[in-house]
Order: sequence, then C-alpha cells, then structure tokens
Amino acid sequence: MAIRVAILGATGYTAVELVKLLLRHPEVTITALTSRQEGNAPIASVHPSLVGRIQANLENLSPSEVAARAECVFSCLPHCASAEVIPELLKAGCRVVDFSADYRLTSPQVYEEWYGHRHPDPDRLGKVPYGLPELFREQIPQADLVANPGCYPTSAILPLAPLLKAGLIERRDIIVDSKSGVSGAGRTPKLTTHFPECNESLSAYNIGRHRHTPEIEQVLSTAAGAGVEIVFTPHLVPMDRGILTTTYSHPTRPVSEDEVLDCLRSYYDDEPFVRVVDHLPATKDTSGTNFCFITARIVRDRIITVSCLDNLIKGASGAAVQNFNLMYGFPETTALL
Amino acid sequence: MAIRVAILGATGYTAVELVKLLLRHPEVTITALTSRQEGNAPIASVHPSLVGRIQANLENLSPSEVAARAECVFSCLPHCASAEVIPELLKAGCRVVDFSADYRLTSPQVYEEWYGHRHPDPDRLGKVPYGLPELFREQIPQADLVANPGCYPTSAILPLAPLLKAGLIERRDIIVDSKSGVSGAGRTPKLTTHFPECNESLSAYNIGRHRHTPEIEQVLSTAAGAGVEIVFTPHLVPMDRGILTTTYSHPTRPVSEDEVLDCLRSYYDDEPFVRVVDHLPATKDTSGTNFCFITARIVRDRIITVSCLDNLIKGASGAAVQNFNLMYGFPETTALL
Amino acid sequence: MAIRVAILGATGYTAVELVKLLLRHPEVTITALTSRQEGNAPIASVHPSLVGRIQANLENLSPSEVAARAECVFSCLPHCASAEVIPELLKAGCRVVDFSADYRLTSPQVYEEWYGHRHPDPDRLGKVPYGLPELFREQIPQADLVANPGCYPTSAILPLAPLLKAGLIERRDIIVDSKSGVSGAGRTPKLTTHFPECNESLSAYNIGRHRHTPEIEQVLSTAAGAGVEIVFTPHLVPMDRGILTTTYSHPTRPVSEDEVLDCLRSYYDDEPFVRVVDHLPATKDTSGTNFCFITARIVRDRIITVSCLDNLIKGASGAAVQNFNLMYGFPETTALL
Amino acid sequence: MAIRVAILGATGYTAVELVKLLLRHPEVTITALTSRQEGNAPIASVHPSLVGRIQANLENLSPSEVAARAECVFSCLPHCASAEVIPELLKAGCRVVDFSADYRLTSPQVYEEWYGHRHPDPDRLGKVPYGLPELFREQIPQADLVANPGCYPTSAILPLAPLLKAGLIERRDIIVDSKSGVSGAGRTPKLTTHFPECNESLSAYNIGRHRHTPEIEQVLSTAAGAGVEIVFTPHLVPMDRGILTTTYSHPTRPVSEDEVLDCLRSYYDDEPFVRVVDHLPATKDTSGTNFCFITARIVRDRIITVSCLDNLIKGASGAAVQNFNLMYGFPETTALL
Repeated sequence: MAIRVAILGATGYTAVELVKLLLRHPEVTITALTSRQEGNAPIASVHPSLVGRIQANLENLSPSEVAARAECVFSCLPHCASAEVIPELLKAGCRVVDFSADYRLTSPQVYEEWYGHRHPDPDRLGKVPYGLPELFREQIPQADLVANPGCYPTSAILPLAPLLKAGLIERRDIIVDSKSGVSGAGRTPKLTTHFPECNESLSAYNIGRHRHTPEIEQVLSTAAGAGVEIVFTPHLVPMDRGILTTTYSHPTRPVSEDEVLDCLRSYYDDEPFVRVVDHLPATKDTSGTNFCFITARIVRDRIITVSCLDNLIKGASGAAVQNFNLMYGFPETTALL
Repeated sequence: MAIRVAILGATGYTAVELVKLLLRHPEVTITALTSRQEGNAPIASVHPSLVGRIQANLENLSPSEVAARAECVFSCLPHCASAEVIPELLKAGCRVVDFSADYRLTSPQVYEEWYGHRHPDPDRLGKVPYGLPELFREQIPQADLVANPGCYPTSAILPLAPLLKAGLIERRDIIVDSKSGVSGAGRTPKLTTHFPECNESLSAYNIGRHRHTPEIEQVLSTAAGAGVEIVFTPHLVPMDRGILTTTYSHPTRPVSEDEVLDCLRSYYDDEPFVRVVDHLPATKDTSGTNFCFITARIVRDRIITVSCLDNLIKGASGAAVQNFNLMYGFPETTALL
Repeated sequence: MAIRVAILGATGYTAVELVKLLLRHPEVTITALTSRQEGNAPIASVHPSLVGRIQANLENLSPSEVAARAECVFSCLPHCASAEVIPELLKAGCRVVDFSADYRLTSPQVYEEWYGHRHPDPDRLGKVPYGLPELFREQIPQADLVANPGCYPTSAILPLAPLLKAGLIERRDIIVDSKSGVSGAGRTPKLTTHFPECNESLSAYNIGRHRHTPEIEQVLSTAAGAGVEIVFTPHLVPMDRGILTTTYSHPTRPVSEDEVLDCLRSYYDDEPFVRVVDHLPATKDTSGTNFCFITARIVRDRIITVSCLDNLIKGASGAAVQNFNLMYGFPETTALL
Repeated sequence: MAIRVAILGATGYTAVELVKLLLRHPEVTITALTSRQEGNAPIASVHPSLVGRIQANLENLSPSEVAARAECVFSCLPHCASAEVIPELLKAGCRVVDFSADYRLTSPQVYEEWYGHRHPDPDRLGKVPYGLPELFREQIPQADLVANPGCYPTSAILPLAPLLKAGLIERRDIIVDSKSGVSGAGRTPKLTTHFPECNESLSAYNIGRHRHTPEIEQVLSTAAGAGVEIVFTPHLVPMDRGILTTTYSHPTRPVSEDEVLDCLRSYYDDEPFVRVVDHLPATKDTSGTNFCFITARIVRDRIITVSCLDNLIKGASGAAVQNFNLMYGFPETTALL
C-alpha cells in the first residue's frame, strides 16, 4: 500500500519539483498540499506546469489535520515556521523530511546567531540526521525526522568531505566560491530577482554572511573530525537552475591530480547519484537530475574542485525523495532516474 | 547656453536611459530628478549604472519647484499622475515631453474606456502632437507639450502607416503580433516578471485588451484618412530589451514584394532613424540605438511586415530626445548616434 | 520481455531526450545507438547529462546490424538520410518511428519541391500514418512505420484541426505566427545560433519558406476535408526549449469565445496530453513534459488560438514514445508522465 | 583635423564596439576596415547593428595599403597574425593599438610557452607599454605601439595592483575566480558557445591553463616589485557581456575592511573609469560602459575583492580608445562617457 504523504508550503519551487518527483513514485500517494496564502485553489492553478498531472487543491490545514491524512510529511515551510509545526507532527506519529534549515545545525546558539531568532524546538537539535545520504546514510532509515541539506552545502560538502576525511587537505583557509541560478532565491518577487535586473548580469551577494556557512562548516568538521573553516562567496547567475561550486584548498602533502580524483572516486564508487568525472562539468550536465558531478584539478599546489548539481533536485527535492526512500526502505533511486 | 531639463519619475528604466542619452547631449543640463518614493537618495545609488556619471540626487519636488529649475520637463510618471502635474508645469512656462499615455489619445471617452478613469485634463486632448517625428514632424517644433509614443505603437505604426497612406493595404483585418523584452513591463517586481517565471518562457498577454490598441488604431486611422482596425497580440520574451512586431495585412490590389519595399523606402528615405532593410532584422540589430528596422514579405497574397526597435530607446527615451531636439531646434540626431 | 530498441543518429538533441524518456520506460531496452561521426565513443561522453544513466557506446552500424539488435528503431537521422535506410530496416522486420520529414508528406512532388531533392522511397508516401495520435490514433497500432510530426506542425495542428473539422473557421487566410526556442535549430553550431548572436535577440526567419508549411497544410486539409492555406511565420526566441504558436483565423459564422473553447474541449476531452486551458499559457507550463496547452480568444471577429509545447518532447521525442506505446500496445502515457 | 584610423580584423565583436565608440569620437575618421574572409562587403551587412551608422566596406588590404590611409591602426587580429603585420605598419609611420596578446608579455620564452609558437617580432617585447592607463599612464602618450590589455587581466589587475603596491597582501596564493559572458569567446561558432549548450548553464574552463595567467602575473609582479603567483579559474556565464572577478588573498598584517577600501579609493581617486564602491557590484552596473567597479570585503582574515567591467568596453575597445586618447593628447574620456 502506498505511503500517504503531505507537502507543507506547497507553492514554492522546491514543492513543485517534489510533486513532480512524487507523481513518478510508485509507492506514494499525495494526500495533502498546504498553503496559508493561496486559499483553496487547485495547485495546478498556481503552478500551470501541474495541469493535467494532479487534481489536488491547496488547503490551509493544521498540523493535526495533516497528521490525520499523511504518514510522511515534507515540510517546505521557511525556517522557524517549520520548527513550529514539526514537533506536533512528530508527536502525532508522522515522519518528516524538513527542507528548512531548522534542524540542520546542532547548536541552538549558532542557529540563533545566524538566523536571528531563538530556535522554537532547541532540544531536538543534534539528534536529527543531516539528510545527505552520501555521508550519513546509516542514520536515515530509522529517523522520524530528517534535515534535508541546503543546496549550496550539498555542492560544497560532497567534493570536500572525502578529501578532509582522507586528510588530504588542510582544514583552514578553504575557499568556496559558489554560483547559483535564480530559482534558489525562491518564488517571492524582489527587485534583485526582477528579470531586467538580474538577467544579463552577475553579482556576488552576502559575502561572509550567507546562512549556509555554518552548515557547511559543521558538516565538514564532522567529516574532518576537527574544526573546518571556510570562506563562502555565493554569486547569482542569470539562469533558472543549477549550482556550480569551485573550491580552493591546500593539500597537507604533495599530491597529484590523480590521487585527488582517486580519493573522490573510491569514496563515491557505490553512490548512485555522485559522479566523479574527468571533464570540467557544466551545471547543464546535471539539470533536471539528482546527480552531483565532481572533478578536481591541481594548480600551483592548490587543490581545486568543481562540482555542480541542480539546486532544486539534488539540492532540495531530489535529496528529499532520496531520504524518503531510505526512511521507508525503498530502493534509493526510486523516482529519481 | 544649455537647456535646463528636469526628469519626473526618475527611478524607472526609461528615465535611466534618458539620463544616459541626455548626459551625451551638448546642449542639456539636468537640473532636477524627481521621485516620490526614493527620498533624497543619489540617483546613482538607485541605479548603479550611473555611478561616476551623474552626481544628482532624487528629490520629491512640487511642479512649481520643478518649474523654477527647468525649462523643459520629461515626465516619466505613470498615466494619470502625469496629466495631474503637466497643466501646472505648462502654466509655469515649461515645455514638456510626456512619456505616459495621457496625451496620446484624442478622445477623453476612449481614454476613460481603456484606462479606467476620467482624464484629469480632458480639454487639452486632441491639441497635443503625437511625438512620432516620422509622421508628425511639422507639429513638434512649436509645441509646448508632446505626447511621446508607446513602444509597441511605434513598432506597429512605422511599418503600416506608409502602406495605409499609399492605399496599398486594406484598413480592416490588420494583425499586429508583437513580441517584447521584459524591461517593457517596468521596474516594479511582479510574479510575471520574476526571473524564474519568465526566463526560458514565452507567453502572450492581454490579447485584445492591451492599452496600446486604441493608440495604434488612432494614429493609423489618421494616416489612412479613415478608420483602421487591428488585432493586437503582445507577447513577453525572455530578454531585457527589444520589440519585434510582425504584421499581416491584405493588399488592396496585387502587389509585388518590391513595390511594398519601395513604398516603405521612399517614405523613409530621408529619415535618420528608420531603415528599410532587405534582411529579416533581429531586435539585436537595433539594441541600444534609436533605429527602427523594417522589412516586408508577401506570402499567399498577404503582406507581412517585420519591424524592430529598442523599446527603451526608439520606443521611449530616444524618441523623447528626438522630440526635444525638434522642439529646441537642435539637429534631430543630437545625442542619438 | 522488454522491446529491444535502436536509435539512429543518437547525437542530436531529440535523441538525448528520447534516451532519457526510454530509460524510464519499463518495457524497453536500448540495444543500439548509432552515429557516423562520433566513432565508438560512449554516448555519455558526447552528452554528459547521460553520465551515470546509460553505459552504451555510439556505433557506426549498418541497417542490417541494427536490425539484428533491435525490434523497433527510432530514426533521428536528417531527412533524406532517413528514407535511405528505413526501407531496409522495414524489410528486415523492424518497426520504425521516423523523426525526419521523409514520410510525413503524401506527395513526392511536394516533397521534392520543398526539400530540394528526389524522394528516395516515393512509393511508400501516402501509406505511412502521420504520428499525431490526437488525430490519427487508430492508424498507428498496426503500422510498421510511423512519421513522427514536426514540432511546429504539432503546435499549429492541435489548435486548428478541431475548429476546421467543426467547420468553425474558414480554410483560407489562416495565419500561424510561431515562436521557438533555439534547440529546435539542432546541435550543429552556426552563426545564427551562436550565443552572442541570438541571446537577447528575437527575429523571424524563413517567412513563407519554412518546410513545415506543406506539412501543416496537408494535415489541416485532411482535417477540414478540403484544401487549407496558411501563412506561416516562425521566429527564433532566446530560450532553450518551447514553442508558442499564435494563430489567427476567420470564423465561418458569429461565434463566442466559449463556443470555440467548448469545441476544443470536447475534441480533446479524453486526450492524455492536450489540455484546453482558460489562462494564456506560457511555454514554461509545458517545459519538460509531453503536454500541449491550448486556449482561444476572440478579438474583432477573429479567432485567436494560443498553443504551446516543449519542442523536444511533445514536438519530437515524447510524441515518438507516445507512438511507440500505441504501436506496441502499452498504455499511451507510459514513460511520459 | 581628424585622425584617420584603420581597424584590422573588423568583423569581430571588439571591432564592432570599437567602430561604435569611434563614431562618437569628434577627432576621428575611420578610413579603413580590413577583413580577409568577408571580401568587399559593407561592414553593415556583416553587422546589421551598424546599418545607418557607417557606410564603409570591409577590404582585404596589405599593411602598406593600410598605412597609406591611416595614421593610427587598431589591430583586432588574433595573436601571431597581429605581430606579423605590426612591424611593417610601425615602419610605415603608423601608430598602433594592438588588441592581441602579442605585445603584452615581456618575455618571448613565456609567450612561446603559453601561445605555442615562436614570437614573430621578439625584439620589440619588453619595450611596448601595457595599455592599462591606471597603472602605466605616463608610458602611453609617447608610444607608437600600445598593447591593449586582456579582459580578464584588467578585471584582476585593477583590484589587486594597489593592494600589492601598498604591501597589504601576500604575493603568493592569490586566487582569481573569474566569470565571463560569452562574447569573450569571440564570434566563431563552436559547440561550447552554441546557444542550447551554454544557455542555462555555467562551467569552469581552462583551469590553470588560461593564457591570461602569465599576463596577470607579469603586471602584478611589476606592481608588487617581486614575483606574484595566482591561481586563475575562468568560468563561462550565460550572458552576452560582462566579467566579474572575485579574488582571495592573504593580508600581510591585520587590516580592516575600511583600510582595504581606503587603499583602493586613494589609488583610484582621480581615475575617470575606476569606481571603488561600497555595494557588491553587478556586471550590469558597468554594461555598455568603460567603467570598472571594485569593492572589497574581509572574511576570516582573507581579503576578498569583487570587480566587474564590460569585457568588450573596458576589457577591450573602450580601453583602446582610452589609450588612443592618451596617445594623441585628447581628453582621456573623449567618446567614452
């Protein structure tokens, strides 16, 4: 019997992608789509790309109403809003994949520092698996709540974690220069994402202040077994989708390009969604897929990695389905190939 | 001595283009830039593309304050707002080029029908030249107020007016299928112009209801000497700038492609900014310029014209400077080549 | 047991899309991918978006070698090249879906006139079903060869055919103003599709001379039961994918917008991939899907239809899979939702 | 009397921009436009954006024919081809601004190593000023030959040179992460710049192997007074124009963001075309202009600079006109504001 799933905050871009993926999942029935703003409209009227594919209406449902309809809940609510409803859903017996940042960080203090408000559910922090199966697969099957990773973090952690684990690169002075398509900024119109402003233009933003910084450092520190420090610079690129991350780090000893690539290859050899490639990958290689492509180069004794993924799939909804598959014992690639 | 000019509503895209053009005009000094919303900010802080090129601040000025500073006023205010201040400016002795639709239509009734409110200054309608020098050049030099044309109308009128004047095409059943870049929608963020919505997408909008319809029909009717009826379909194209208009009309008698092109060529032979070309022009050919390119084809006894221009230049600010040059007796191409 | 399928000319954009769709098809095994130019390279080295999804190599195979490996062949070869190998494949017992124009037209003379060379297999013309299931579904299951429709024709035929069948519109003076993304121009680099040339630009091309013209007229004439004449104007739009077609036709009698929409709705009521919508659809609504969205408006007694689809899916590879499903008795939507 | 100028290799993107700038220059007459491939075609037939602005034809002229027509020659020929004709032009008394890399490097060995062939005119290397007026203004007025800088180098040198001169940053381990629009790749169609390949995509290319690397290091070493080493990673961005360069360097001592910005500001205080800004600039801020915008941030003891410019203007043709103005004693900003 199919798992009944609900999607909270179903009007955003990640939610639409999630709906499309779940419609292909043979073991899933979507039983609720919530929205506070959109009244009782058919989701296909808000997202015409769903016309003819799903009949469901958006609804303004309470957590208990959601729990009555669904075994598994995907929360696409913004941070803070998510942690305000998840405890009730868990208590009611739901299992939850949370797209927000609320359960990614392990420290309430760090959360408060970067997100600017007290965490609504601090006791649970540190007990929730970070939903990056490539690093934490064994923690996910038994979890009731999984913190789905941020898009930038996935693109930065996947190339760097194996090198840190292998002790191949220094833990300090790692530069993460990321470039993202505009869908990463969400669906709310703003001047910075107004077409005539950001089209035919490129800019850096939130240098040193982007909220994905502590998340990347936390997960890489876990991988390294000691504190990792990064400089993170995100850029906005005039395209819909895709993140490309270029990292620069110091090797701990003289290494060849082949050694670095071998380290990455042996780490990801059995992974269904990570490909270590020889060519310099383009975001378009991974567009619309749950893959992350990684390669590495050495220039003047610096290790450079280039990784890319689709921010809405491997960077959000595809990862969520991957986590869902692990939580419910389905083949990890179901609905994702 | 340079003409002192003011720009009202100086935060929009047409105003920025106008500033850039006027900075190149040897006979102009910009003495006021008004904005209701932006307080007293330097215009270059609102539009970083003006950094290093102009020092002026935006100011919230009354019409009389504007009149004290400027001989000529370019009003980039929205319709209705424009006609609310222009009478006072004229009374105070200013000459005005109005970018809004307020003085383009000759009938207050038609204005009310299409714009949804009573005209604030109905008595002046019908006495203001329509600022398309290619058709009404002789009316402009002596005018105190010129109604700068809409961007779509310019792209549709320039190819069709000579054919109507020459009696080459029927006045009924003219199809105007236009395609515009997103800057035409203005600078206010909206969902339809949010990058991830309109990028990589194309759509028609306001079919049969676009407010440029009566303006096109009125000017073409004047050219034809009798009522002209069009079907106008605008489309939104994922690019910053440019309008391409494809028209379909019936010849009144059998004509060859050469006859049609000759009719256009002889009409525009002396025009500095209209080029009748043999190739099918692309909007990029005219991007950043005050040119309109036109060509024509005949298919199955239908006359097809294709015309293109930069909606912010020939479709707005370049045309305004062209009108200004005519009003003040400067060479028509000053600051426009 | 899965059907063994081959794809001829597997390096183009439609072939890649086809591979992706077929990889999701539970009843298909891809057994051959041919290319003359690319030697023996893995297809994933030519199309990195297939890395990790398919291991197969491109091969330069003869028709008999293909026939030895596959029951069903999708030919993505260019026109003429396709008709040179298909007879041999059919003789060897293969069933074929042909993406080229070679078997779409029923008249060898018309073919020669528009394609500039003698048809290599003229006797078969007129006996091959035109693979638009929405019009010719009953002819497809038993066919050994299906002519997959062109992308523009599908976008024009779907809105117009029901209106012609119902006698609602005149057969003459139908205008088809189409706008297409650049992938429609194929994968061979040319100046017109060089990014800095066509980005931020819009142009019409091949007015009155585009080879899809006779195909549209032929199918619409079949629908109307008498000769239909169109004026077809394609435009190139700076986006990867999507076709939007705006048609203008004369009603045969006074009709309301509702009548026109009802005519379309009742015709497509049971169709899985055609949706008659109320809103003005955007190409993005259908991007990545096998859907065609259609709506209609009436302006000044002209019937206007707006239709859109993904030129690589419903306009090519999705339609091919739809035909394949019908030929082999699988549910028509398999691998397409 | 106006200076008679010739442009060699007049079909590329930088040449067209140069023509547009020179048409605005009151002291210039364009007397020759050369091309080997385009026969005797009007330049406006190759570049329709010049229709109505210039009548001249392309011609296949020998250096002596060029010298007979022009006092000043802008060579937009590719590297190697440029150094093969420039000696003869100089001998004939012409002054030359060379857009190619041929006279930028001071060492024939380094040139041969990076460009793969022997330098055709090695004796002149080291005696030609590098045409970046912000660093080498005093060398330009008396020069007969100026080496116009590369686009990436200008974007990297302008932010880093003042910091190196002031001893504020270490000379080793400087990372230059650059992102460029597609026009930087030139006008010859290639698969990598084919619209459906590079649109909606982002990729790094030529990591550690880009030919602008030695040029950047050479000029920065001159600024620092000792050897500078960079890691240079260029990226291709789906937009026509613009380069944004993000650099990461180590301060030599603890510094504040204000100190870094002050260092840059005092260096560029009198420069007409460099603006040190507080906001994170976007390439669009400088699009179509000869400006370079620079800002700086400090994150985790790393100095980050972000700079941007229009690769075809300040990165090529605008810089060339700036050099021309200095060579002939015109105000440096003539034709550039």
